[in-house]
Amino acid sequence: MINVGVVGYGYWGPNLARNFNTARLSRLAAVGDLNVQKLQLAKLAFPEIKTYSDMRELINDPAIDVIAISTPVSTHYPLALAALESGKHVWLEKPMCETSDQAKRLIDIAHGKNLVLHVDHTYVYGGAVRKIRDLVTDGTLGNILYYDSTRINLGLFQHDVNVIWDLAVHDFAILDFILNKHPVAISAHGVSHIPDSPENLANISMFYEAGMVAHINVNWLAPVKIRSVLLGGDKKMIVYDDLHPTEKIKIYDRGVTISDNPDYIHKMRIGYRIGDMSSPDIDTTEALYTETAHFLDCVQNGGGTMTPGEAGLRVVRWLEAATHSMKHQGMQVRLAS
Amino acid sequence: MINVGVVGYGYWGPNLARNFNTARLSRLAAVGDLNVQKLQLAKLAFPEIKTYSDMRELINDPAIDVIAISTPVSTHYPLALAALESGKHVWLEKPMCETSDQAKRLIDIAHGKNLVLHVDHTYVYGGAVRKIRDLVTDGTLGNILYYDSTRINLGLFQHDVNVIWDLAVHDFAILDFILNKHPVAISAHGVSHIPDSPENLANISMFYEAGMVAHINVNWLAPVKIRSVLLGGDKKMIVYDDLHPTEKIKIYDRGVTISDNPDYIHKMRIGYRIGDMSSPDIDTTEALYTETAHFLDCVQNGGGTMTPGEAGLRVVRWLEAATHSMKHQGMQVRLAS
Amino acid sequence: MINVGVVGYGYWGPNLARNFNTARLSRLAAVGDLNVQKLQLAKLAFPEIKTYSDMRELINDPAIDVIAISTPVSTHYPLALAALESGKHVWLEKPMCETSDQAKRLIDIAHGKNLVLHVDHTYVYGGAVRKIRDLVTDGTLGNILYYDSTRINLGLFQHDVNVIWDLAVHDFAILDFILNKHPVAISAHGVSHIPDSPENLANISMFYEAGMVAHINVNWLAPVKIRSVLLGGDKKMIVYDDLHPTEKIKIYDRGVTISDNPDYIHKMRIGYRIGDMSSPDIDTTEALYTETAHFLDCVQNGGGTMTPGEAGLRVVRWLEAATHSMKHQGMQVRLAS
Amino acid sequence: MINVGVVGYGYWGPNLARNFNTARLSRLAAVGDLNVQKLQLAKLAFPEIKTYSDMRELINDPAIDVIAISTPVSTHYPLALAALESGKHVWLEKPMCETSDQAKRLIDIAHGKNLVLHVDHTYVYGGAVRKIRDLVTDGTLGNILYYDSTRINLGLFQHDVNVIWDLAVHDFAILDFILNKHPVAISAHGVSHIPDSPENLANISMFYEAGMVAHINVNWLAPVKIRSVLLGGDKKMIVYDDLHPTEKIKIYDRGVTISDNPDYIHKMRIGYRIGDMSSPDIDTTEALYTETAHFLDCVQNGGGTMTPGEAGLRVVRWLEAATHSMKHQGMQVRLAS
Repeated sequence: MINVGVVGYGYWGPNLARNFNTARLSRLAAVGDLNVQKLQLAKLAFPEIKTYSDMRELINDPAIDVIAISTPVSTHYPLALAALESGKHVWLEKPMCETSDQAKRLIDIAHGKNLVLHVDHTYVYGGAVRKIRDLVTDGTLGNILYYDSTRINLGLFQHDVNVIWDLAVHDFAILDFILNKHPVAISAHGVSHIPDSPENLANISMFYEAGMVAHINVNWLAPVKIRSVLLGGDKKMIVYDDLHPTEKIKIYDRGVTISDNPDYIHKMRIGYRIGDMSSPDIDTTEALYTETAHFLDCVQNGGGTMTPGEAGLRVVRWLEAATHSMKHQGMQVRLAS
Repeated sequence: MINVGVVGYGYWGPNLARNFNTARLSRLAAVGDLNVQKLQLAKLAFPEIKTYSDMRELINDPAIDVIAISTPVSTHYPLALAALESGKHVWLEKPMCETSDQAKRLIDIAHGKNLVLHVDHTYVYGGAVRKIRDLVTDGTLGNILYYDSTRINLGLFQHDVNVIWDLAVHDFAILDFILNKHPVAISAHGVSHIPDSPENLANISMFYEAGMVAHINVNWLAPVKIRSVLLGGDKKMIVYDDLHPTEKIKIYDRGVTISDNPDYIHKMRIGYRIGDMSSPDIDTTEALYTETAHFLDCVQNGGGTMTPGEAGLRVVRWLEAATHSMKHQGMQVRLAS
Repeated sequence: MINVGVVGYGYWGPNLARNFNTARLSRLAAVGDLNVQKLQLAKLAFPEIKTYSDMRELINDPAIDVIAISTPVSTHYPLALAALESGKHVWLEKPMCETSDQAKRLIDIAHGKNLVLHVDHTYVYGGAVRKIRDLVTDGTLGNILYYDSTRINLGLFQHDVNVIWDLAVHDFAILDFILNKHPVAISAHGVSHIPDSPENLANISMFYEAGMVAHINVNWLAPVKIRSVLLGGDKKMIVYDDLHPTEKIKIYDRGVTISDNPDYIHKMRIGYRIGDMSSPDIDTTEALYTETAHFLDCVQNGGGTMTPGEAGLRVVRWLEAATHSMKHQGMQVRLAS
Repeated sequence: MINVGVVGYGYWGPNLARNFNTARLSRLAAVGDLNVQKLQLAKLAFPEIKTYSDMRELINDPAIDVIAISTPVSTHYPLALAALESGKHVWLEKPMCETSDQAKRLIDIAHGKNLVLHVDHTYVYGGAVRKIRDLVTDGTLGNILYYDSTRINLGLFQHDVNVIWDLAVHDFAILDFILNKHPVAISAHGVSHIPDSPENLANISMFYEAGMVAHINVNWLAPVKIRSVLLGGDKKMIVYDDLHPTEKIKIYDRGVTISDNPDYIHKMRIGYRIGDMSSPDIDTTEALYTETAHFLDCVQNGGGTMTPGEAGLRVVRWLEAATHSMKHQGMQVRLAS
């Protein structure tokens, strides 16, 4: 039985605690939080755990095998570093770190000590995104032409990160997972309409080889909540609406074809193909349930997780690049391959 | 009775012909088109008109007072120039011209000859956009923070213009009409996924004083048709869905407020306001009916139209700037005030 | 070339005139209407036709082969009778007559004279309803369990018929077309909320063999317009939304299965099956275009139309039965087989 | 502090337990269930409670003041009877009893012993239904003309009750709460498509004075979930969609007016009024939280609850009448006033 300690029992920590406590391979052994009231809540829900106000003590508790970190991003690096140095496997909330240098260092240490370093890109483990990856990988969509995401709502404002780090991070994680290629450049524009607050609306463009482009529109000041992605291939196209209760993914047999027929519209040899739409049944298992089971299997059997430190590092690099571009009026930032 | 000659009887020309023929102040006197079949169609629908294969003859016909031009954009300038020089009032499809220099020259000539030069920014005359302008102008929305438009569908490809000139032109015309200020800089990214074809998807950011930003997402390769605009003010916010049959405009009493209360979330002194939504009844008169009546009134009584050559020129300047930025990887293009 | 005379040039007549004038096999030869202004409109649109104020003259015009009748329902019988007696083929708007006795008499005369008697059940010729019939006929849906229609909107009030004759008539025509069986009994409830006006909201239940039931909810006093039908089979189920611009039909691989597994919910041997949804591309040809071509082919080649007098008679019988039930507090009215 | 014992810890019991345990005026003292595993779950969630396998012991526990019963409907009467006889206040799930005779007897005993007898009509305590009652009561809607509910989904089948007792019961509770009048007659049709199973789809019509009619469409065999109610008044009309995340209620300023103007459509003196739509912000407090607080206040201070035994009795009477009508082919069943 793998013993898990959860560090940080705020918004997301209770979900980690619940899943690790009910997983077949693990049990919740400890919870740490600086706030005593949070610890009391944890103790009420899981009477048999130990609770810690000093994170270092929890991390060094020899009865614990895995440290799951769900604290503000500014504390991710020191906590994960201590956990790895103490020989624990690490589960880390996203974004993984504040800088790519920190992320690289964590990866190096985990490799040196042969420990699992897992980044919690939760969306990637849900039925919808896994289905999309299957449709990309098996060629159903054809060549991917564009990804276009609208991820907007009213608040919740984060005090330590801008809207890109809070919302676009989901799209970065999804893109890293569904595509087998990475962007070569990023450009972003953003603005803050609240004094002394980080940017609360932004648009990010990511450029890939062969003209593929990803665009992400994030906004904390929108009157309605939207979680919508268009994924266009040259064979089929997807509309992914994460808020739809039952039809999250619609696959359209629709596209543009180039022809030699001289009668096509405007003499451009371009025709339109309109066919059926289908909406596959999606696995509705809680993403976090699937993810914890996968992670625990990697800890037990030594395999690599689907979202290792390297995936977390790529996402942090893109966040850095987007933020840098946004600070320089959308200047295109090239990414090393 | 004002006699109108319509030049170009393709997609839009028949709508102009029908409206000018039924307007109280005018009648359709002539139609010109290079395609004889189009002229036969016009003659069938309006048996009493004259038809012309030579546009110069039509333009010089002394019985005609107004020339309405609905031809490909590359022919707008020579046709409008000839019409103004022949002393006719001019109705010109959008975009007004291929270059801002052409637009400026038409404006100068029209002023010199005291002729009406009207650009057909149709959306501006519809009930929905006029309602939005009222809500901006009377202060209902407060300070405008952002405009965010998604204008996408599958095709129709234009062979002589890119997707910005075809679709974003509508947003430029709407922005010019509803706001009492103009952008100071523009940045755009776009790509073509069809060989030898102009850009078919693009994102444009327009920057205004005081941090206001407009973002426009246009795409000819989308599997679904969307015509949706978010307009965020610091008092209220609008969702404008032009495809909704009855509730095109929804006004949300929703926003962010800054407070001195120290208990607010994340100690950022930011609170959220969630109130009622309302959807006003919109005037459903055909926009073109309202527009032709307004134009004919200006011709008869000498007033300026709501969308004169100057409005058309601003839109062409923004189209030029967006295209220039797009050709240079999103380089920010500043606009003269 | 088949010469067609259209009697009644109000709301629907111009559509008949346009389609008969452009059909390959026919031309519009005459239009009749008691209202001189309507005749002027017809002459303006179709300069070469003859116009008649006396319907008997039009019907007896020897140059005319087909009489298409689109007048108020109370005049259908005498006009169709005169046309058949004059040896013309007849196209009749729905509902076919005011009583089933009238309908039977028209059918007898048409048979005796070997003339085509066609009832205009327009929906039946649209892509959506034809697709539904295919899915029923080829067994895709399995046994049909129920049909459930909501057909509501604000007005338009009819002064001579109740809401059942105005709106439920569409469902009756669709049911007659898509199913290969007929109801054995009908029950209906309705009420009028406008003094001296026929019933403006009603619910109709139609009972078939083997427990199949059709329910129809019609309402002229609804704040929103709905045209939605659920069709449940024991293999698959359909949601048909006639107002959806592109996805009118959704087919759900969803249903209930009976099993021997003792663990099923509530020990009722009932299991639930949730599968994919698909939305087939629908033929968007104007229904009336398809219908006139089909009718003219029957006139020329002597075949029977898909909606002959017999179909119109069944629909009138159901309208009579529903109205009778409604007048008697929902008393179940049995239908002769 | 009021001590509450919850009898029945299946689907709904845990919600009662959680709310009574966190309410200001009460604490959860005991849980009873015949299933030992359910009791273990309860003990895990609320370590300090007593658990009972013998309901009679729980009911007679002198430390307990309130018995909340969430068991199958067939056990409601004996359990509630025992609780009242033991001097406990009673909270009873809906439907209150299997027969109106049972319900009447419980009411009599509760009155005799001055105990609170509350029926859990949960919807009535939610923000949406309370808002609708306000709009009816303050005259905003004018005279109510009709109520039209569609309440359909796939399963969950109940083995001991038909679809009317399972789904229409919600509409009966809502109608009892929002209107100040009661139906005078009921008619219902229903059918079962699963062998040896109660009716799984049904339509109910309820007739009120002055022509007001309520219609309810319930179905366990529908491929999609709908929870939609239209409420038509002669001044305004409501569409209530309980599944909409944020805009559950839309109020339409739409209706029909009778006029003396002779030009109105079809000469029927009927005009149409189309105006604004508004969607009020709805209190999103959990209905059960509001309801338990209200119930506990009545227990403590002796007032009557908004949904007393008398409300539960009316709903049971309508369920009996609807079932009786359904068994007799929709025969109209009159209700004593």
